[in-house]
Amino acid sequence: MSSRLKGKRIAILADNEGVEEIELKGPLQALKDAGASVEVLAPEEGEVQAFNHLDKGSRFTVDRKVTDASVDDYAALVLPGGVANPDNLRTDPEAVGFVREFFDNGKTVGAICHAPWTLIEAGVIDGRTLTSWPSLRTDIENAGGTWVDQEVHIENDLITSRKPDDLEIFCHEVVEAVAAD
Amino acid sequence: MSSRLKGKRIAILADNEGVEEIELKGPLQALKDAGASVEVLAPEEGEVQAFNHLDKGSRFTVDRKVTDASVDDYAALVLPGGVANPDNLRTDPEAVGFVREFFDNGKTVGAICHAPWTLIEAGVIDGRTLTSWPSLRTDIENAGGTWVDQEVHIENDLITSRKPDDLEIFCHEVVEAVAAD
Repeated sequence: MSSRLKGKRIAILADNEGVEEIELKGPLQALKDAGASVEVLAPEEGEVQAFNHLDKGSRFTVDRKVTDASVDDYAALVLPGGVANPDNLRTDPEAVGFVREFFDNGKTVGAICHAPWTLIEAGVIDGRTLTSWPSLRTDIENAGGTWVDQEVHIENDLITSRKPDDLEIFCHEVVEAVAAD
Repeated sequence: MSSRLKGKRIAILADNEGVEEIELKGPLQALKDAGASVEVLAPEEGEVQAFNHLDKGSRFTVDRKVTDASVDDYAALVLPGGVANPDNLRTDPEAVGFVREFFDNGKTVGAICHAPWTLIEAGVIDGRTLTSWPSLRTDIENAGGTWVDQEVHIENDLITSRKPDDLEIFCHEVVEAVAAD
């Protein structure tokens, strides 16, 4: 536990169902270990049902509904993957608007695996370069983005990775970006 | 059981994991009831693990690997949904090529729910009008398609529906299209 991110509050936004467990738990722990205050946000109160690939995993307490959260209160946003999670999240206009506001305000956003579907929905992909789970490549390119196959890609305030195997460097880069803010 | 589709062979293509059970079982039964011979195709031999939303459901025997199948042998193709199914299938170039060939040959294709992701990957969406599970709307529009919110939409040889609730009319229209060929 360090105090590098002391005083920084970070939002992790997931749907109430379908997030990839390790992609929620990994960043949550890494950011807490760096001294940040971390909140799990979701469209509904209660819990987030996480998955290990397609098997149900742990449940996480929702700290705040996304409609009760203000972007001003957070230094950064982390979007985990899991195929069903962004597929649900992108159909919630308030969640999508919340994500867009981080970009409008030039705040750090980390997105891993299938999470960039929510970025497509927020209309923030055009002209950006990013990585993701490979199935999203065509959707990202059709949205005007450039897709790269890298463990982590950093472009200004957007940090992206492909999959759980990339979590160590993904979490490291999110912590570094928040620390540098 | 009728004999309207006697002598017609239909392919249902799904990934080995993640298909929405009722969207495989419904068309399979409807087409068999109309007298067709129906084969379940998948990237790998063995079984298809179906899901009821995010809960594991039945397993279905794979009749043929997609790489061992020839489009010439089928009158039509049905693509069921389930969020993980097309997300996997679209990363298999041989499955995607198989789908594209049905369009190249002007054969009937029925796609429901999340299945149009595979159509996006096959590059056959541009200029077409279709429906789907609503989360795919932006991806379809970014691929050059026009998205409509209808129980079923028929445009030339492409029949699309949104979700399990639309299965009755979806199956009816697929049967009618094959009967009219």
